[in-house]
Amino acid sequence: MRRMAIEHPPTQRAPHGGLLDRRAFLGRGLQFGTVFAATSAAATESTADASGPTAARSPPRLFGQPFTAYGQPSAHERQVLRSIGLNGRGDPGNGAAWSPLEQLEGTLTPNGLHFVRSHAGTPAIDPAAHRLVVHGMVRQPLSFSAEALLRYPMQSRQLAIECGGNSSAGWFEEPVQRTVGLTHGLVSCAEWTGVPLAMLLDECGADPRATWVVATGADASALQMSVPIDKMRGDCFIALYQNGERLRPENGYPMRLVVPGWKGVLNVKWLAALQLADQPAMARNETARYTELLPSGQAQQFTFAMGVKSVITTPSHGQRLSGPDVYEIKGLAWSGSGAVRSVDVSADGGSTWVQAALQGPRDPLGWTRFRAAWHWDGRPALLQSRATDTTGQMQPSRDALVQSRGRRSFYHYNAIVTWAVDERGIVLHSYGEV
Amino acid sequence: MRRMAIEHPPTQRAPHGGLLDRRAFLGRGLQFGTVFAATSAAATESTADASGPTAARSPPRLFGQPFTAYGQPSAHERQVLRSIGLNGRGDPGNGAAWSPLEQLEGTLTPNGLHFVRSHAGTPAIDPAAHRLVVHGMVRQPLSFSAEALLRYPMQSRQLAIECGGNSSAGWFEEPVQRTVGLTHGLVSCAEWTGVPLAMLLDECGADPRATWVVATGADASALQMSVPIDKMRGDCFIALYQNGERLRPENGYPMRLVVPGWKGVLNVKWLAALQLADQPAMARNETARYTELLPSGQAQQFTFAMGVKSVITTPSHGQRLSGPDVYEIKGLAWSGSGAVRSVDVSADGGSTWVQAALQGPRDPLGWTRFRAAWHWDGRPALLQSRATDTTGQMQPSRDALVQSRGRRSFYHYNAIVTWAVDERGIVLHSYGEV
Repeated sequence: MRRMAIEHPPTQRAPHGGLLDRRAFLGRGLQFGTVFAATSAAATESTADASGPTAARSPPRLFGQPFTAYGQPSAHERQVLRSIGLNGRGDPGNGAAWSPLEQLEGTLTPNGLHFVRSHAGTPAIDPAAHRLVVHGMVRQPLSFSAEALLRYPMQSRQLAIECGGNSSAGWFEEPVQRTVGLTHGLVSCAEWTGVPLAMLLDECGADPRATWVVATGADASALQMSVPIDKMRGDCFIALYQNGERLRPENGYPMRLVVPGWKGVLNVKWLAALQLADQPAMARNETARYTELLPSGQAQQFTFAMGVKSVITTPSHGQRLSGPDVYEIKGLAWSGSGAVRSVDVSADGGSTWVQAALQGPRDPLGWTRFRAAWHWDGRPALLQSRATDTTGQMQPSRDALVQSRGRRSFYHYNAIVTWAVDERGIVLHSYGEV
Repeated sequence: MRRMAIEHPPTQRAPHGGLLDRRAFLGRGLQFGTVFAATSAAATESTADASGPTAARSPPRLFGQPFTAYGQPSAHERQVLRSIGLNGRGDPGNGAAWSPLEQLEGTLTPNGLHFVRSHAGTPAIDPAAHRLVVHGMVRQPLSFSAEALLRYPMQSRQLAIECGGNSSAGWFEEPVQRTVGLTHGLVSCAEWTGVPLAMLLDECGADPRATWVVATGADASALQMSVPIDKMRGDCFIALYQNGERLRPENGYPMRLVVPGWKGVLNVKWLAALQLADQPAMARNETARYTELLPSGQAQQFTFAMGVKSVITTPSHGQRLSGPDVYEIKGLAWSGSGAVRSVDVSADGGSTWVQAALQGPRDPLGWTRFRAAWHWDGRPALLQSRATDTTGQMQPSRDALVQSRGRRSFYHYNAIVTWAVDERGIVLHSYGEV
């Protein structure tokens, strides 16, 4: 049943490394090849093709399972999980749960699979006892319970939140061989709903001389982060809901700060205090950590906005192409500064590019899903994606990023990612060499 | 700490029943009153106000809970559940799980709380064994496994899906006294991602004389629904993902039909067959059921698009206002024919209207959240919302709907909903009388 809808002379490479124009999706009759998970038993078989119907089946005669009050995924999807990695000495609460990007679709992350980065585990907070205190350079310090905040007017945004340390393995000398989720999965996109911070600042009577707001979380790490007050007043909010329901504990229940487009650590979870000040706190996580050491030996501090970025999620490391065929290349793009305007895809390591079809963003700072049809001729290929946002920023090559930032810079890695496909269809992470 | 930001002479009613202009949200210093769940212990106290901070708290010294591979809601949100109702003789698989609209926010429904309507329970389907057969008036019948469909190009839409029988209690002579979720909660909004049906129809070589496609589900009810082929080819798709992850079993895992804007029952779950034909199947659920008996005694059949509709979720039945104050009125609006263009809100039973502020839709057929600020003076009030879509359709009054459709018409109830607030702040369902 597998047909080749696109024919090329076998001895000559297709233009654009086989990438088809994005209007190819509008055409009819394209058949797509299978990308297997390499660990799957299916990788050795070929049972997935469309085929003529065999026998008419009768429906089951028995009632199925009863209704549930809170639904869960299918037992057949039990392998779709976040991967947990602990930092440093293996402190059990200091680490991250990486979102399995290669197993998800669309432009949102379901709550159960949203990435998590915590410094001291998930505190068990009784929402009735929790308070957010706004204090410092204010006329009247105030304390807000979750119940009080729930009666304020709210706003909703579908935002990509990305950890500043996401993709940091890209700085390594050798390309790490891990799934896209375990390399780039400290980013997720959800609809966050909550109370605009401007309302609370006005209610407390912010001193016009205040230039910073220092946010503190209620976990054992007492994470402190300083954010310029103009940003706080501009578009930050106290999120109470995540994809329609109250926040998940690992994502900050009962309330978290949301700082649209800026690095994840600023989106302080279990938010307990906001202190208005005329200088930043210079706390541990904005001095010793979450700063970028430059080739000059100086460190870059307060780099807030996440760069424009994209990554191909299929095909990606750990997957395998079933043979020469037409495949859909798909992935995710986002930027902390403005909407994704275009995503280019290359199948020849960046020599030629074709514009991908885009879905989204629903919100300028949300996720964009990109898709491109690709005819793989069975020879080695280097797949890349390159996003450009509405501010004109374009995702840099790895060489350009290393050139400007050196190699001692853990955070803010947003270079173009390369997946190398070999003759067997096996996909590996690469720095650009076949 | 409660301050009244808006002052009115106490003996004179405010214009527009106290509804404030939607630009009021842009103003500063508005304080909002508490809407309690009537069953909550908090309803008798008043501890939720913003207040001066008391004592500086120390962060916990111990690490919190470890990371989890698949997250769950907070134990403090255990009461946020779907309500299960069984139909007819109490067959355990025939009924619905109603989404708790009054406890959700934003413009999406999380997967665990998406409404469910099933006729024979949730079948336990092994995705490796399941097939979708496309047959009938086609050149080449084909069978598709989920694995085969997963390699096709996909699209994502954020769509409100509403059961045709949602809100049917509105036809009763007396207003039912139930929560908004238990009355109107057979609607939800999620991002659905899947394969455009046009691709599969072309691949099978649809006969140009075929005018209908009959969809059949794999559950014990063998639900059959007929959809005109132009709609199927136009914007229908086979959904494989829901809010980023694979479909939930109760919502059709491993694949369901999505028919944007049209009544929920057409969005056949556990989709097993699509038969192209030159006439509809005239199956049980499109003749004996899911049709509307008119005053003339004739039945209306194949009423597909869901009407323009809105409902206030806060304040709503079962909630209680804490006293005269400013409140946020909020709710949801949607239409099966086009984007919601405006929502008007009334606090005086429809004598005067004020335009609400809108959030969304992210997709023309998704949910719009509306919000309006309201100064309640402590006297009885009748709260209503009225949506208008871009096709010019406006939500009808209950009287107008009953006038045109009679009282024997179970489906497609989209009349304006009235919540009566009494002097004690108690909110009850009403047909317009205080």
